Amino acid sequence: MLIVQKYGGTSMGDCDRIQNVANRVLETKKIGHSLVVVVSAMSGQTDTLIGYTKHFSKLPIEREVDMVLSSGERITSALLAIALDSMGYKSISLSGRGAGIITDGVHTKARIEYINTQKITDLLNEGYIVVVSGFQGVTEKGEVTTLGRGGSDLSAVALAGALNADLCEIYTDVDGVYTTDPRIEKNAKKINKISYDEMLELASMGAKVLLNRSVELAKKWNVPLVTRSSFTHDEGTLITTEENIMEKPIVSGIALDKNQARVSIANVQDRPGIAADIFGSLADNNINVDMIVQTIGRDGKTDIDFTISESETDLTKKVLDKFLDNVESIDYDCDIAKVSIVGVGMKSHSGVASAAFKALAKENINIMMISTSEIKVSMIINIKYSELAVRTLHSVYELDK
Amino acid sequence: MLIVQKYGGTSMGDCDRIQNVANRVLETKKIGHSLVVVVSAMSGQTDTLIGYTKHFSKLPIEREVDMVLSSGERITSALLAIALDSMGYKSISLSGRGAGIITDGVHTKARIEYINTQKITDLLNEGYIVVVSGFQGVTEKGEVTTLGRGGSDLSAVALAGALNADLCEIYTDVDGVYTTDPRIEKNAKKINKISYDEMLELASMGAKVLLNRSVELAKKWNVPLVTRSSFTHDEGTLITTEENIMEKPIVSGIALDKNQARVSIANVQDRPGIAADIFGSLADNNINVDMIVQTIGRDGKTDIDFTISESETDLTKKVLDKFLDNVESIDYDCDIAKVSIVGVGMKSHSGVASAAFKALAKENINIMMISTSEIKVSMIINIKYSELAVRTLHSVYELDK
Repeated sequence: MLIVQKYGGTSMGDCDRIQNVANRVLETKKIGHSLVVVVSAMSGQTDTLIGYTKHFSKLPIEREVDMVLSSGERITSALLAIALDSMGYKSISLSGRGAGIITDGVHTKARIEYINTQKITDLLNEGYIVVVSGFQGVTEKGEVTTLGRGGSDLSAVALAGALNADLCEIYTDVDGVYTTDPRIEKNAKKINKISYDEMLELASMGAKVLLNRSVELAKKWNVPLVTRSSFTHDEGTLITTEENIMEKPIVSGIALDKNQARVSIANVQDRPGIAADIFGSLADNNINVDMIVQTIGRDGKTDIDFTISESETDLTKKVLDKFLDNVESIDYDCDIAKVSIVGVGMKSHSGVASAAFKALAKENINIMMISTSEIKVSMIINIKYSELAVRTLHSVYELDK
Repeated sequence: MLIVQKYGGTSMGDCDRIQNVANRVLETKKIGHSLVVVVSAMSGQTDTLIGYTKHFSKLPIEREVDMVLSSGERITSALLAIALDSMGYKSISLSGRGAGIITDGVHTKARIEYINTQKITDLLNEGYIVVVSGFQGVTEKGEVTTLGRGGSDLSAVALAGALNADLCEIYTDVDGVYTTDPRIEKNAKKINKISYDEMLELASMGAKVLLNRSVELAKKWNVPLVTRSSFTHDEGTLITTEENIMEKPIVSGIALDKNQARVSIANVQDRPGIAADIFGSLADNNINVDMIVQTIGRDGKTDIDFTISESETDLTKKVLDKFLDNVESIDYDCDIAKVSIVGVGMKSHSGVASAAFKALAKENINIMMISTSEIKVSMIINIKYSELAVRTLHSVYELDK
């Protein structure tokens, strides 16, 4: 088997931990697998380096920021290669450039365009354990770029896809994906298998484990992903296609997202295209709109409610101020949370949503907005009921069993 | 003018110091000069990184060591470019690769083979201050290499040579070259101008300021070198061709080297080629022999005395043990020092050496070995008289005046 393993910043936190990673890598190597290992910078290192760049400028030139930030992974990848070599195994480190990872030119948040895998393939054929600096690539002109948050996961998934690897293992300090946040519900259970789509919907829980960018890429290239801990030998969570999951639970997990804000626009003038204008302006400013609810009033005027990321509230205000003449009022509410029930089994089971509504009503939790997809029901509630709602739903669907 | 400036690790020691370097760079830029700035890693950083590599192995693979070590200068060069940019000056950082510095493949102590200057020239023409990561290059195949001790100076001198720069300024925490070590002789004076050859002979003093590799390269490419402090505005020392120095002092400085050992081989058998065998074996083991004195005894047997670097004493013993059958004895003496009088003016003045012998005799300092060149007289003495000898000679040639 060809396996791509990725070790995060906590796993690579100091020399002793890198030695631990080397031991883990060799456990897999000794079974006879071929191995590409993608590593992050030592935890804290990237923040230190960002701090340096901010010392000189609030908006340091991003090309130079990438030169600085990419160093962290160069160091850890070379150190891991040294550790593996000293234990008697042929190993070599490759920077993003060396690994043939070609990106666009958007510094600090570049997208991988393609990967020249020839060099890695040659090295694997020669028996090397290939250690790749995560989080980075180069443009076709050879300029160093970084991939933004979760970039090392992305490097690993992209390499696994390009190399047609049998498995991509993401090692972190968390031992998998849980039915909900264990800090909220202590009876949360680790999920053994979950589909790409469910994982995407569980984003708010997954954020600590995997960003959506990586899951989307894994889905696109059909890469079986495992997320597990480098500090234990627990099995972790396999993220794969729905077809590979035999027993589909109705509900897989409960997600909570507190970083949402609700925008309520009252009495939007009855003029064609005004809603399109509003959402067009938001899109022009790269403001992501999540749930949208439009209600048509008796007099033909409409109310529009939608949610955005809380951190974009100020920008949204700025963008929407020009519409104040065309509406009665625009209100912003940051004291809300989104609770979501996720499960592929919903497709074939009715009554999932109504059980949620009933349970929340019983706890006197008012649902402000609802949106559903084939495998998800999301509800906006007052933020103060967040944890109670999560625990209630977790128990309603017997996820603790 | 095109000026290459190089700032060492102490000058780049933290963000505030990098800001200070940015200010210094702009002083030169504002006069209207074109500028290439070569930087070292933050002081201490390289040692930290070496420490990491040694954590896993006494002899870490050198290719990987180079990947680790080269990061330090990538970081500082990008930070300096950020600082300059934030002050309103177009600036860009280039790694060794980006700067077109092509080396051989001897990792951790590579030699520069040539420099592709096109990219730097283009950037200079566009008005950029070009900041180059010192101490590093790449092989023709693109493998990252580092240049060994003093590598950043070498990068600067080589770039100045390849770019045909008008001046190469080496900024350190020392304000120039002194007539002797000021810690030994408090009346030591800073030298304003000195020839390449004198600088090479003053190596033991110069080591703190400039390694011989850099001076040799500057001489070869006829690059005027200035060594000065980044913390003061003192003028520093200009190192240039002899022809550029109008007033040639008879003696420019007194050098002291305590890291020497004397090997005394008594009664070498009178067999043709045995001396060649001995020195051949030493050369095969890369042991540098400095001074050699051979005395022919009455019975045709000879005594051979020579000096080596003290750190190579153990290796030398190992190499010479096989000759013990052919000689009476081999003795090793580490309690010696080499004191040298250096000056281009000696060429045209007699009596320089005899003044030294007389002065040392007056202080009861026995001279064990003597060697001379056109511009130097070196003497081996007992190490305990080192400082006294330096002060005595410094005063004899009126270097404190």
